[in-house]
Amino acid sequence: MLVNGREMRSLWFEDGVLKLIDQRKLPAEVEIFVADDVEKVAYAIREMVVRGAPAIGCAAAYGMVMDGDVAKKAMLLKSTRPTAHDLFHAVDYMVEKIGQGKDAVKAAHEYVESIIDRCRRIGENGRKLIKKGMRILTHCNAGALATVDYGTALAPIRMAKEMQPFVWVDETRPRLQGLLTAWELEQEGIEHAVIADNAAGHFMRKGEVDMVIVGADRIAANYDFANKIGTYEKAVLAKENGIPFYVAAPISTFDKSIRSGEEIKIEERDMEEVLGIYPWRPKKARNPAFDVTPAKYITGIITEEGIIEVNE
Amino acid sequence: MLVNGREMRSLWFEDGVLKLIDQRKLPAEVEIFVADDVEKVAYAIREMVVRGAPAIGCAAAYGMVMDGDVAKKAMLLKSTRPTAHDLFHAVDYMVEKIGQGKDAVKAAHEYVESIIDRCRRIGENGRKLIKKGMRILTHCNAGALATVDYGTALAPIRMAKEMQPFVWVDETRPRLQGLLTAWELEQEGIEHAVIADNAAGHFMRKGEVDMVIVGADRIAANYDFANKIGTYEKAVLAKENGIPFYVAAPISTFDKSIRSGEEIKIEERDMEEVLGIYPWRPKKARNPAFDVTPAKYITGIITEEGIIEVNE
Repeated sequence: MLVNGREMRSLWFEDGVLKLIDQRKLPAEVEIFVADDVEKVAYAIREMVVRGAPAIGCAAAYGMVMDGDVAKKAMLLKSTRPTAHDLFHAVDYMVEKIGQGKDAVKAAHEYVESIIDRCRRIGENGRKLIKKGMRILTHCNAGALATVDYGTALAPIRMAKEMQPFVWVDETRPRLQGLLTAWELEQEGIEHAVIADNAAGHFMRKGEVDMVIVGADRIAANYDFANKIGTYEKAVLAKENGIPFYVAAPISTFDKSIRSGEEIKIEERDMEEVLGIYPWRPKKARNPAFDVTPAKYITGIITEEGIIEVNE
Repeated sequence: MLVNGREMRSLWFEDGVLKLIDQRKLPAEVEIFVADDVEKVAYAIREMVVRGAPAIGCAAAYGMVMDGDVAKKAMLLKSTRPTAHDLFHAVDYMVEKIGQGKDAVKAAHEYVESIIDRCRRIGENGRKLIKKGMRILTHCNAGALATVDYGTALAPIRMAKEMQPFVWVDETRPRLQGLLTAWELEQEGIEHAVIADNAAGHFMRKGEVDMVIVGADRIAANYDFANKIGTYEKAVLAKENGIPFYVAAPISTFDKSIRSGEEIKIEERDMEEVLGIYPWRPKKARNPAFDVTPAKYITGIITEEGIIEVNE
C-alpha cells in the first residue's frame, strides 16, 4: 500500500526487529512502533498497535523469531488476543517449522508472503468485476492495514485503480473503522466519500451505488458469513435494490465445521464503544460487534482461488 | 412529558413571557430559556433552542403575542428558519386571528393546545398496537421535545407505558437525535437501549424487535414519506424480517400536492455534521439529512383521526 507516496506494508521485519505502523495513532498520525523482543510484539498485539486477524498472525510469526524459549514465546503470544484464529494458526505454524529445524526468520517471511500473496490474488480475481467509473460501497476496513498489504475487500479496488472507481465508505459505527478505509484510499489517490451508515440505503435507492464489496470474519459451510456489525443491513439493502454484493476473503476464512450462520456466536462488546462520542450518558446501550449475513444476500465470494458464485 | 418527575412541556407561556427547555443543552443539562420579546423568540427558533417543526410553530405563535407591530413581528419570525412549514402556518394563523380582533394570547394558546391534542390522539390511537412487553424500535427523535408534548412516534409508547414496552433507540447519526429520545424515555421510566444504527438490522434478524414506529417530515399522496436519514434502511429491514412498520404523524404532515416520494427534494447538509466526531479529517463526506421511504414498506400511518392501513 502507499503511505505518503511510498510503498509500505502495515508491518515488516528489518535488522532483526519488527516494525509496525501504529494503528492506535492512525489515521491522525503515521508512527512506526518498533518491537525488538517477543514481549514488545505481544504488547503490540494486545494493545492493538496491529489490528486485523491476518496482520495479527503475521506479527505473531515475527514474534516467534525473537530470542527466547520457543514454548514460552508461543504461550505468551497466544495469550494476547484469545479470539483471533489467525494468531493461533501462525504461532503453531512457527512452532512446527522451528521444531523441524527450519530457519525461523525464513519461515516467518514465508508465512507473511503467503498471506500477502493471497490478498494480491483476491485483488486480481476481483478487479475483473470493476468496470470503468463504478461506484462501490464498502463497510468497515478490510484493507492493507488489516492484512499487511492489499487487503481483502480493498484489494480489487486498489488493483482496479485505472478504472477510476469511486468508493462510498460507511463510517462504521461504533468504532469508525471506515476512517482507516478512507485513509488508505486517500493514500492511493482513489476517489471516495465517507457517509454515516444511515445514508448507505439512501444512495443505493437513488441508483448511486453499483456494487458492494465487504470482508468477512468467518464464512460457514452454507456461505452465511459473519462480519462487522451493519454488514447485514447493507446486504439486505443491496439485494432490495438489485445491487451485486460481494464478499472478499481468503480460503482460510471458510470454516467448514460451521454449517450455517446460526452457529456463529456474536461477540457483544463494552457499551463504552458506543457511548464514547456522546455528550450525555444514556443508562443503557447494546453493542454487538458483528452480525451474520445469510448466504441468500451474497452475489459471490472473491477468494485467491477464484470467485465463488453464490447467487446469480 | 415528565422532566425530573415533574409534568412539563417543551415550551410554555407564563407571566407574559415564553419559556422553553433549551434543546441546545439537552440532554446533558435541563435549562430554561426565557424569551420576553419577539426578538428573543426569533433567536430561540434560529439558534435551535427549540427544534422540531410543530414545536417551532408553537414558539412562533407565542412570538406573535409579544409587543410590536404585527406585520414586522410576522416577518421577523418567518425569517428564522425558512424551510419549516409549521412556522409559516402558525404565524399566518396568528396574523389572521389578530386581524379578526381576537385576543392574541388566547389564539396562541388555542393553536398550541390543538397541536398537543393531535399528538395526544395519535398516542391514543397508536397505543392499541402495543402489546404487553413489546420491543419497539424507533429512529431519530419524534418525541415531546419536537411537538411541545407527547410527540408523534413516542406518543403511543408513552401512553402504553403500563404495557411495559422496551424501546430500541437508534442513535441516529450524524446528529445523534436518538439521545433526545433516550432522555425522554429515561424521564418517563420506560425501558430502552441505545444502539449504533448499524445494529438495528441485527436485532431485527434475531427476532428481538416486534414493531418499528417512526415520525415523518412529509407524506406524499401515495404515502411515500420523507424522514430522518436512515429511516428507509430500517423500513426495508423491517419488511424483510416481517416486522410491522408504523409512521406516526398528524394530518398536517400529509402533502397532497406531492404525488410520490420521488418529488421530495432531499436536503444535503454541511459535511461537518458527519466529520465533527472524527479524530481525523477525511477529504470528503456526503450528508443527506433525510431519505424517502416508499409506501410499500409501511404497515400503517398513525394519525389523530385513526390508523391508515397502508399494507397489511
